[in-house]
Amino acid sequence: MRSKEVLKQLSPYKQGKQTKDIQEEFGLDYIVKLASNENPYGFSDKVKEVFQINEPVFNIYPDGYTSELRYLISEKLNVRPESLIFGSGSEEIIQMLCRSYLTVGDQVIMATPTFPQYKHYALIEGAEIIEHPVNEDGSHPLDKMLDSIQDNTKIIWICTPNNPTGTALSKEELEDFLNKCPSDVLIALDEAYVEFLQPEKDLNALKLLDKYPNLIVLRTFSKAYGLAGLRIGYGIADPLIVETLDKVRGPFNTTSAAQQAAVIAFSDQDFIQHTYQKNKKVLKQFQSFLTSIGWDYYESEANFLLVKTPESGMDAFDYLIKHGFIVRPGELLGIPNTIRVTIGKEEDMKVLENVLRDYQEQLN
Amino acid sequence: MRSKEVLKQLSPYKQGKQTKDIQEEFGLDYIVKLASNENPYGFSDKVKEVFQINEPVFNIYPDGYTSELRYLISEKLNVRPESLIFGSGSEEIIQMLCRSYLTVGDQVIMATPTFPQYKHYALIEGAEIIEHPVNEDGSHPLDKMLDSIQDNTKIIWICTPNNPTGTALSKEELEDFLNKCPSDVLIALDEAYVEFLQPEKDLNALKLLDKYPNLIVLRTFSKAYGLAGLRIGYGIADPLIVETLDKVRGPFNTTSAAQQAAVIAFSDQDFIQHTYQKNKKVLKQFQSFLTSIGWDYYESEANFLLVKTPESGMDAFDYLIKHGFIVRPGELLGIPNTIRVTIGKEEDMKVLENVLRDYQEQLN
Repeated sequence: MRSKEVLKQLSPYKQGKQTKDIQEEFGLDYIVKLASNENPYGFSDKVKEVFQINEPVFNIYPDGYTSELRYLISEKLNVRPESLIFGSGSEEIIQMLCRSYLTVGDQVIMATPTFPQYKHYALIEGAEIIEHPVNEDGSHPLDKMLDSIQDNTKIIWICTPNNPTGTALSKEELEDFLNKCPSDVLIALDEAYVEFLQPEKDLNALKLLDKYPNLIVLRTFSKAYGLAGLRIGYGIADPLIVETLDKVRGPFNTTSAAQQAAVIAFSDQDFIQHTYQKNKKVLKQFQSFLTSIGWDYYESEANFLLVKTPESGMDAFDYLIKHGFIVRPGELLGIPNTIRVTIGKEEDMKVLENVLRDYQEQLN
Repeated sequence: MRSKEVLKQLSPYKQGKQTKDIQEEFGLDYIVKLASNENPYGFSDKVKEVFQINEPVFNIYPDGYTSELRYLISEKLNVRPESLIFGSGSEEIIQMLCRSYLTVGDQVIMATPTFPQYKHYALIEGAEIIEHPVNEDGSHPLDKMLDSIQDNTKIIWICTPNNPTGTALSKEELEDFLNKCPSDVLIALDEAYVEFLQPEKDLNALKLLDKYPNLIVLRTFSKAYGLAGLRIGYGIADPLIVETLDKVRGPFNTTSAAQQAAVIAFSDQDFIQHTYQKNKKVLKQFQSFLTSIGWDYYESEANFLLVKTPESGMDAFDYLIKHGFIVRPGELLGIPNTIRVTIGKEEDMKVLENVLRDYQEQLN
């Protein structure tokens, strides 16, 4: 059987090691996973309660329209119900965008490094990828991205705060970009980490949707909401875009458990506030620590920090994993000599600081 | 923005009405959903217990390799771990097959009526669809399907028992078909309803995988296992096919809850046996009843029955829904003047029989 030609050049996604595997391999009891920007504080207790009390009805198909969650988000975010599309994580919406809008010979524009699935799914559709290295501070090189727009440009990806650099766009930069971008180019604004932004840095991107019908905003329940294991995210866009995505969407692409948990999690903004405060505090402490040992990092508006390492990121990764800390080496993210560290709980980060201090001393 | 040209001709999937909506619309308390071939007996009690006892860890990403379920199924079905691919329902594996193997100008062959997503996902990839009407008994016209194979034929779909006719292939028919089919054409054998087959009619398709590396078998936890709401299914094929599908698969395409539930459900074959026995008994009773009022139907080896209606299927559907029974009108399945009825619990089917008898008398 001949598969699509382009698949010969692609590899399946290689996930990081599972906590269980590392426990066995290194004989460790204390393991802290700081590799996937998960929420170290778990998720809303209210979700836990509901799942303990209610009898699940797993045997019935989910509501393919995701009605309850749709109307809740619609009301709270003041967007039309028909402006919402749900996916198995916002990651699946990236896939839907590529499947709906890209054909062989189309072009997509993105920064590098950024979230790798923008590129992967575009390649599957046979599109040409234009990647612009991020600026020195880790921000998107917006002018260069605009300059590279051609007649066949279909989608421009903007991830803010950017994964893995953590850098966020300003409101002025976004509006300027939207104004300069041709109206037939789709702009996908991935706000997976929006809940970690300082309120004054919020882009209020949803307010721009009416003026820019070529804009789609992606959000997720996998990060601040702590529901990564349940796979649910959403996109907000002009109903015409949503209708197009709905044609390629699997009819029952999110589980009933995910829909139910997301409704409760979205209603508990206290938990999000708690997560935000804790993250900011521990992030600052960790930044101060890094400065104290002479390490540099990219300024981050998210729940992770891209740290510049004295040797390769892989070297730091290897050292850390033996001490129970799982981080992402930059070599796997397209930005060598860095590690991406999720900001964990204060007590775990203190232990990490000691391990990093030892590592630095050992290098001297 | 210009989406793929072919999407202009496609519509999003329209799901049936939700039980809640019908309750409100018709002011009914008693509603029985016999529209989606769900398991009326729920799912294994053991799944329920585990979900009541365990604290969920929703904040951690699922295992993208689905290790625990993979090794369990591998051992129990005697297939290699690397021969398994998991999807958000087997439905997502249909999508992956189309995304991996089909490009514009390729051809796929299937029966009609059959499960509609084979066609939908192939159209999205720009493939040409050859549909052969089922034989009078609802079975696949295998010779005609073979005859229509061309150089550009990439996938042939065989659904057995076929949804919506319920007709099953025999072992001899399958082997004859596999022998005559060119080895570079992928044969996708969808066994979503395999657990409802009489043991002597089991195709033992997994035993054929070594001899026919162009065969993929699809299975699901949505039907007999009663886990439709959690979205998990799997495919079994040559590791080369699995590796190809893995390249287009979302890295975390099934939830941790689904993986966990499937492990427990798969280990409780008593529940499957119970479901099988109940289904066979109630199916026979319902068939006898239909004969007694002079109605015909397709012989079914599954948990549903395609019933020939005196007037249009839509007319029967409209009558039934007012009395609390949700079925699928054949007009929506590509086979007019029929309804597809999931075999429900005995007590509900007795009520349905009374409603159908009244309907028939009213027509006289």
